Amino acid sequence: MAKNKKQFRPKARLPKGFRDIGADELRQTQAMIEKIRAVYETYGFEPLETPAFEYTDALGKFLPDTDRPNEGVFSLQDEDEQWMSLRYDMTAPLARHVAENYQDIAKPFRRYTWGPVWRNEKPGPGRFRQFMQFDADTVGTDNIAADAEICMLAADTMEALGIARGEYVIRVNNRKVLDGLLEAVGIDHSDEAKRLPVMRSLDKLDKFPREEVAKLLGPGRKDESGDFTKGAELGEAQIEVLLDYVTRPKISEEEAAAIAAGRGFKPSELYLEGVGELNALRTLVQAAGYEEDRITIDHSVVRGLDYYTGPVFEAELTFEAKNEDGQVVRFGSVGGGGRYDDLVARFTGQRVPATGFSLGVSRLQAALDHLGRSAAERVAAPVVVLVMDRDRQPEYQKMVRSLRDAGIRAEMYLGKGNIGQQFKYADKRGAPCVVIQGEDERARGEVQIKDLVEGLRLSETIEDAAEWREARPAQFSVPEGDLVKAVREVLERHRGEA
Amino acid sequence: MAKNKKQFRPKARLPKGFRDIGADELRQTQAMIEKIRAVYETYGFEPLETPAFEYTDALGKFLPDTDRPNEGVFSLQDEDEQWMSLRYDMTAPLARHVAENYQDIAKPFRRYTWGPVWRNEKPGPGRFRQFMQFDADTVGTDNIAADAEICMLAADTMEALGIARGEYVIRVNNRKVLDGLLEAVGIDHSDEAKRLPVMRSLDKLDKFPREEVAKLLGPGRKDESGDFTKGAELGEAQIEVLLDYVTRPKISEEEAAAIAAGRGFKPSELYLEGVGELNALRTLVQAAGYEEDRITIDHSVVRGLDYYTGPVFEAELTFEAKNEDGQVVRFGSVGGGGRYDDLVARFTGQRVPATGFSLGVSRLQAALDHLGRSAAERVAAPVVVLVMDRDRQPEYQKMVRSLRDAGIRAEMYLGKGNIGQQFKYADKRGAPCVVIQGEDERARGEVQIKDLVEGLRLSETIEDAAEWREARPAQFSVPEGDLVKAVREVLERHRGEA
Repeated sequence: MAKNKKQFRPKARLPKGFRDIGADELRQTQAMIEKIRAVYETYGFEPLETPAFEYTDALGKFLPDTDRPNEGVFSLQDEDEQWMSLRYDMTAPLARHVAENYQDIAKPFRRYTWGPVWRNEKPGPGRFRQFMQFDADTVGTDNIAADAEICMLAADTMEALGIARGEYVIRVNNRKVLDGLLEAVGIDHSDEAKRLPVMRSLDKLDKFPREEVAKLLGPGRKDESGDFTKGAELGEAQIEVLLDYVTRPKISEEEAAAIAAGRGFKPSELYLEGVGELNALRTLVQAAGYEEDRITIDHSVVRGLDYYTGPVFEAELTFEAKNEDGQVVRFGSVGGGGRYDDLVARFTGQRVPATGFSLGVSRLQAALDHLGRSAAERVAAPVVVLVMDRDRQPEYQKMVRSLRDAGIRAEMYLGKGNIGQQFKYADKRGAPCVVIQGEDERARGEVQIKDLVEGLRLSETIEDAAEWREARPAQFSVPEGDLVKAVREVLERHRGEA
Repeated sequence: MAKNKKQFRPKARLPKGFRDIGADELRQTQAMIEKIRAVYETYGFEPLETPAFEYTDALGKFLPDTDRPNEGVFSLQDEDEQWMSLRYDMTAPLARHVAENYQDIAKPFRRYTWGPVWRNEKPGPGRFRQFMQFDADTVGTDNIAADAEICMLAADTMEALGIARGEYVIRVNNRKVLDGLLEAVGIDHSDEAKRLPVMRSLDKLDKFPREEVAKLLGPGRKDESGDFTKGAELGEAQIEVLLDYVTRPKISEEEAAAIAAGRGFKPSELYLEGVGELNALRTLVQAAGYEEDRITIDHSVVRGLDYYTGPVFEAELTFEAKNEDGQVVRFGSVGGGGRYDDLVARFTGQRVPATGFSLGVSRLQAALDHLGRSAAERVAAPVVVLVMDRDRQPEYQKMVRSLRDAGIRAEMYLGKGNIGQQFKYADKRGAPCVVIQGEDERARGEVQIKDLVEGLRLSETIEDAAEWREARPAQFSVPEGDLVKAVREVLERHRGEA
């Protein structure tokens, strides 16, 4: 130790909350991105990439769970002492881009983008500080048809990724409905102290039965362990109206008025506007053939972000699955979005209506993994050409070349290991076969091919070492000129196998 | 102004040195990445993604032009007050990954990766603080065959991207040759004050004739404007030996010894080792069919990074092109790399030999643009279905649906514009055609299709407005059921046109 005092050796470790991503996962992600892009392109969306950094003031205060601008994001100062932050989502950079290039953009503007976002939050299991988002947004129109299109886009994307119809649903609500509803029962939009606990309670309807949510909206709720959650302290009539609405997915403007009137309330203008928009959205998607099994109105969709001003969407996986411990789990939401009409106005003062959808690529990927549905075909590990004689590397290199030219993944063994170590390497790489040419084979103008997949299978049946050596199972010779053909046959035989 | 005092409106602007990337460029980049990946996969390289951040101590001091760890990189402190930095290249994160996962990695380990890197340097024209690199490295072998493979990989990549044979060359040198050469003429490896000016002068051989470089190596050089550059102050014999070597691409160990002896020097061990490695590399690539026109030994390749320890490579475009001002320019180097055997040892103390190559994707893309060779086929802009009657949006939406289902990019106009504004929008989008259905067409069960490409062409020949309205050029009606067929015919007609 003392000897090396002068030489500082940093520990090789990843920063907390970050991770490396290996070949299998990356290949799947890449294939998913290609499939998502193909759908978005058909809809006329155009790709746009913004850089990792924005000036902190441009990012604003729209980070969930915090209104402190330097909390939750990674920030640093540039040489002019201006604060820059890494983007925490794709929406704020889009708003900046639109405000900056307003005159040049053909509006309505449909753009898609994907890439990493960064959150300076406490990391946890499955919660990383860098993860990928894939977003689509339409900027410059308040036409409800734009929201309808986003819902169809989300549904098509699920199916393009291999989630079958019936295994997902796009749930739609409208902030105007929720806000108008609260207004109708006498809770003012500006009364955050009242409004937020109500929203949070309603968001629990997918977890708790109606009567338990009623407790949360009212005096409070004691759970099984005896813990008490403070309630929103609404009156009984208020609670009943809210729950009546929220638990009825389809509702006409007339019905809405009737329900309210029956409890002594009058539906607000905002509420009726929201219901009208939802009905218009339903008409549009159904005209294009999207029925309730794909896109459905659901008044219980709340979504956390403060900046939504109209329709909100959630893409949800509906199937159940068992986790490693045998417990039934639901993957739930894999994406969401909504209408946000005020983001560009932050810069320009001019209202620019917009609506969009963000897909959680990793979450979707986990679900696809679980279903055993891969976005990408399994890529075969490379064939390994063993080096029996280092002086003959140019000749082995030539064999590798001929395999690569035929489109076969192939490598020459580049290490220093003896033959046993070379076999170990090929095993560790998962090589389907190895190519061997020693002095004898070379003299005969032949190569040996050892089928490692078949070999493994046979090794489980042959018990005697002598018998093994004698049989040389799954190993055969071919003339040098037949190398590519023979290797291809081995690959064909094991296509799709582990 | 005073009125809005309370409301802060940030200016919408990008941080200095960063840029947004639009649809055309992004599509090209994406297509290039796919082509590069396909080549690397055939060679048996596996993808790996590391996060944007590394602990600053893990990045080390290997940034070009600086040995101050917090200069040149973007750094901030995490909640434990440890300094983190955004990666400035892909090599340092690879070294960290290998050191961290050494036992689990099958070695030799071939990995490829691509993504943004960040440099906290002064931005300039064409110099950004975020740009993309695409790297391939082989870790865990000092076999010169690994370097040979990287050279072939680089050559294959050029051709896969549409750079024809003869338009590029992979130039190879060896640090051992250069260092050994300096050693032979009496300049010690540790004598940085002497060594660096010599290296920098030799690096000028592609710009200046031999006699001018000789001045830089000797007493100094006065340029045309009269500015004087201080020389490295070598003696004449030293200079002649260096220039003799460096300007002779192919050289055998015997010749090397002879040249040195002729000037009274003895080639050093290191030098002969370097020459031997280059000869072995040449034998390997030529066995695989790569002749001098693709991979060539060139003793003038220096490359800036301090960490190289053996072969160094440079991928160079050799064709000349004219820039906007009509001046002849060469694109020059579009990638490079080399052997670096000490990077992992920074962490573990254990030497892990490695070699790699980094491709400058944007630079290559600029060259391909210049050649008019696109990596991606041009994506047609979407067909726009005009909205003649907002109440009929569901029906227009249905038409859009049928086009999308047929794989045709299509959108319904989502804005509020009148018919003239809708046409303007379609023009700005570059739409190949628009679909129109007013009351009359609807009554007849027809749609009108207006071919905008053909229309533009005709507008250049028809001069009279009345004639124009009469002729309704490039506009025709089809039965609703033939919409997809008719649109497809228009698209076919203009495939590949602007």
